Amino acid sequence: MMQVPLTVGPLLERAEKFFAKKEVISQTHDKLHRLTYAEIGGRTRRLMSALEALGIQKGDRVGTLAWNHHRHLEIYFAAPGMGAVLHTINIRLSPEHIIYIINHAEDKILFIDEDVLPLIEAVQDKLTTVKVFVVMTDKEELPDSVLTPLFSYEELLRTGNPKYEFDKSLDENDPAGMCYTSATTGKPKGVVYSHRGIVLHSLALGLADSAAISESDVSMAVVPQFHVNAWGTPFACTWFGTTQVMPGPRFTPKRLAAFIEKFNVTVTAGVPTIWLGLLRELEQGDYDTSSLRAVLCGGSAAPKGLIKAFEEKYNIPFIHAYGATETTPLVTLSRLKSYQQDLDTGEKLDQRSKQGIPVPGVEMKVVGNAGEVKWNGEEMGELLLRGPWIANEYYLDERTEQAFQDGWFHTGDVVTVDEEGSIKIVDRTKDLIKSGGEWISSVDLENALMAHEAVFEASVVSIPDPEWQERPVACVVLHDGYVEKVGKDDLLEFLRPQFAKWWLPDDVLFFDEIPKTSVGKFLKRELRKQVKEHYNLQG
Amino acid sequence: MMQVPLTVGPLLERAEKFFAKKEVISQTHDKLHRLTYAEIGGRTRRLMSALEALGIQKGDRVGTLAWNHHRHLEIYFAAPGMGAVLHTINIRLSPEHIIYIINHAEDKILFIDEDVLPLIEAVQDKLTTVKVFVVMTDKEELPDSVLTPLFSYEELLRTGNPKYEFDKSLDENDPAGMCYTSATTGKPKGVVYSHRGIVLHSLALGLADSAAISESDVSMAVVPQFHVNAWGTPFACTWFGTTQVMPGPRFTPKRLAAFIEKFNVTVTAGVPTIWLGLLRELEQGDYDTSSLRAVLCGGSAAPKGLIKAFEEKYNIPFIHAYGATETTPLVTLSRLKSYQQDLDTGEKLDQRSKQGIPVPGVEMKVVGNAGEVKWNGEEMGELLLRGPWIANEYYLDERTEQAFQDGWFHTGDVVTVDEEGSIKIVDRTKDLIKSGGEWISSVDLENALMAHEAVFEASVVSIPDPEWQERPVACVVLHDGYVEKVGKDDLLEFLRPQFAKWWLPDDVLFFDEIPKTSVGKFLKRELRKQVKEHYNLQG
Repeated sequence: MMQVPLTVGPLLERAEKFFAKKEVISQTHDKLHRLTYAEIGGRTRRLMSALEALGIQKGDRVGTLAWNHHRHLEIYFAAPGMGAVLHTINIRLSPEHIIYIINHAEDKILFIDEDVLPLIEAVQDKLTTVKVFVVMTDKEELPDSVLTPLFSYEELLRTGNPKYEFDKSLDENDPAGMCYTSATTGKPKGVVYSHRGIVLHSLALGLADSAAISESDVSMAVVPQFHVNAWGTPFACTWFGTTQVMPGPRFTPKRLAAFIEKFNVTVTAGVPTIWLGLLRELEQGDYDTSSLRAVLCGGSAAPKGLIKAFEEKYNIPFIHAYGATETTPLVTLSRLKSYQQDLDTGEKLDQRSKQGIPVPGVEMKVVGNAGEVKWNGEEMGELLLRGPWIANEYYLDERTEQAFQDGWFHTGDVVTVDEEGSIKIVDRTKDLIKSGGEWISSVDLENALMAHEAVFEASVVSIPDPEWQERPVACVVLHDGYVEKVGKDDLLEFLRPQFAKWWLPDDVLFFDEIPKTSVGKFLKRELRKQVKEHYNLQG
Repeated sequence: MMQVPLTVGPLLERAEKFFAKKEVISQTHDKLHRLTYAEIGGRTRRLMSALEALGIQKGDRVGTLAWNHHRHLEIYFAAPGMGAVLHTINIRLSPEHIIYIINHAEDKILFIDEDVLPLIEAVQDKLTTVKVFVVMTDKEELPDSVLTPLFSYEELLRTGNPKYEFDKSLDENDPAGMCYTSATTGKPKGVVYSHRGIVLHSLALGLADSAAISESDVSMAVVPQFHVNAWGTPFACTWFGTTQVMPGPRFTPKRLAAFIEKFNVTVTAGVPTIWLGLLRELEQGDYDTSSLRAVLCGGSAAPKGLIKAFEEKYNIPFIHAYGATETTPLVTLSRLKSYQQDLDTGEKLDQRSKQGIPVPGVEMKVVGNAGEVKWNGEEMGELLLRGPWIANEYYLDERTEQAFQDGWFHTGDVVTVDEEGSIKIVDRTKDLIKSGGEWISSVDLENALMAHEAVFEASVVSIPDPEWQERPVACVVLHDGYVEKVGKDDLLEFLRPQFAKWWLPDDVLFFDEIPKTSVGKFLKRELRKQVKEHYNLQG
């Protein structure tokens, strides 16, 4: 067979040729843009030539600090397309972490959204490798800024060459992108994505039994483009000629709902907290969401009630998936097997609320205290992964040794596997509550609590216990109408029939908000601190 | 990213693990078998260990002369799974070509269907490399045969090890399979398939916009497993956990229709002549074909009338595809783009009757007399292909030089490309009729003729002409009811409004049957000979 490398550039070339008229609809600060793939292609080529003119070479890291919009998409293809490395930076991280990430990756250039400029201006003197700044704005004039040299994105494009060619000399194992994931403790850890990994992952996203991304779709990635390449959807959607809707800076649930209706979005992807927010908006507004064929949900476990609400109240099919920054990210996806279509509604929901089976190309192994666990839906073990789009290291980071062992990525996620091979995340290894020598799954308790009509969000953490080593405490945010009407005992009564006695939380604390990470996951480290402070506990 | 090679073994491992209960339904000479993927997996592992015991080593060619059934499927995985090479041999070739192929590939072992034994017995003394013969039969006793040593497939399995492991040390570029394609002149040409090529091709078959093969499908490959791996469907279907129906030896249209109804087949693949035959059967019988979501058709251009009949009379969606032995084979597939859904019925049929656009991963270039052709649906040029599942050579064959040039496979197919990038095969370079310096597409004339209600099959070939160099002659098989009722002038009248005057055939000859190749394509070389004999022409 021909030795044709799997590289990122040809994905856009296919869209330019075969889907020239299809559109990318992009919200920026100032307006809504509609560009065809022919236009996106020309602009991306201009950008590549501009990067070259600015001195960017093969292997150089090209940093972005940006929301979901078409310019960000263009950099997705321009940087790897010329052999450089797309480095998406999480704009919600602390300045300290952002400085660390940019310096550690040795970014040569930064592409910055208008409203993110102040963040970088404030830390500019700490950046040791950046030579050039580019601001992405719709305005004709450059904003006043201390950043120097500072270029305007559109001005760079105007001077660029629309016929510039993608680099066809790349090896498929060359780096195409990178992304840092925040660690529980310590500095963020970098993951490098290869061209090969991204292309294979895109194929996986197009499989009928996976996300089934198609030319006929209108895809809106709500998951940020600065987070694991928006789950790789911009690459796959471009390759397949899918219409893309990009919700832009600081979007609200209202904007998401409006875009779904206005642009007939068929598939959208994001974390559970986003969908909880959208659900609230749908309950308040009057939106036509009938175009949606799938809501993809990952990042953390979606409560069963969320899945149920989308499907039963709004008839929106909800697909639960699992992945991580280290896994490009798609690993598993929960769809019913053909013979499971005969299950009753409750059993189907049980099955669908699991994380599902690995997509073709990914191998898994679940290892508990005594080797690989039985597939019985009960034994807990850590999920280990292997595959061509699974990382084999953290970028220049000694924490590699711990997470990557014997050719497997140790996810730190504790799961059960049922008879069908479907995994269910029960916890993070570090969040599992070890009570009297047994394990309690904080996630199981959270999901059960969130199935209560009064509960908007729930997070369960451990507190130290002199007798049992650790004991669970539930932290709950109530829906507006239920505050001060539903109390600790109501919720414990609700849990009692569902769990062994020793699983029940020792206490239920009520919060206005649960602290979250920059990508919308519960920030248990912070929550645990708050809970300990509440009880005046040490450590 | 991890360096995990793309190899064939893990495709079956996935089915063993996650689709253990799903079935392969297989017709052999004596009975209908139903085996689960767990059973197929165990049997394949037994077979690998038996092959090893018989002395088969990495890189050795394992020949098969067999119909579509589960044992053939097991060899599909056992041979490449242990590092050997699956060599499927077309049992419909002449003994002379079969001898050539086996010796040229240097097959070490031959797996032979019961009814194919006589074919090999007759040529045994000409086979220079085969050390072992295995007969695939349901019977307990070995048939009487001069072949020696001769083993029984099921006996080999009984002695095998069901826990034997797939070879995990393979390189993804190692050969996994091979298949010979008959040439217009000269010996058949061998194509070697790599593990990587087969795995990537399987992903392509699973894409939502391609064949969309899914766990929920029931797939019946009618295209022979000895022909380009049954278009790769056994690999893809196994990987995705799809139920497979294998119609076995010497199937008839009646069996195909009955299997579709009985096993609720959802997707099936074959050449146009098969579907013409099935259509006749559906017209005569009373079958429920409502389970079918797609009939995939390739191998040669399907007449528009065939597509229309399936869709309008039987409501069976028909998907036109294009590929070749050299291309694993999927290259293009014709689906309407989202915005083409607004076309009227006739325009949609026009579009669907083309071969479509390349699937993700395949690049094409269409080169006419003056470089790349315009995408206007009119300019004709040869189709050139490039991609990771496109061959880069013929196996130890000097004809490589002609077909593989500058990194592109020159298909020998003449196509037009429309504004949407959809190709339409207008001819083989060698079948194009060159009349007065202009090109006439034999395929266009054939399709037009086959749209006439009286015409069952039509093939157009050139005859030498002193004035025009070449002129077209139409060879037609009429439907039963029309014989002697429809004549030459009726058909020429029918064509007249559709073509330029100089395109019209000089004559129409009526045949009982049109000679076909072993895979059901019109054998124009033979037909041209018959036509010349008819006119007493030389050469």
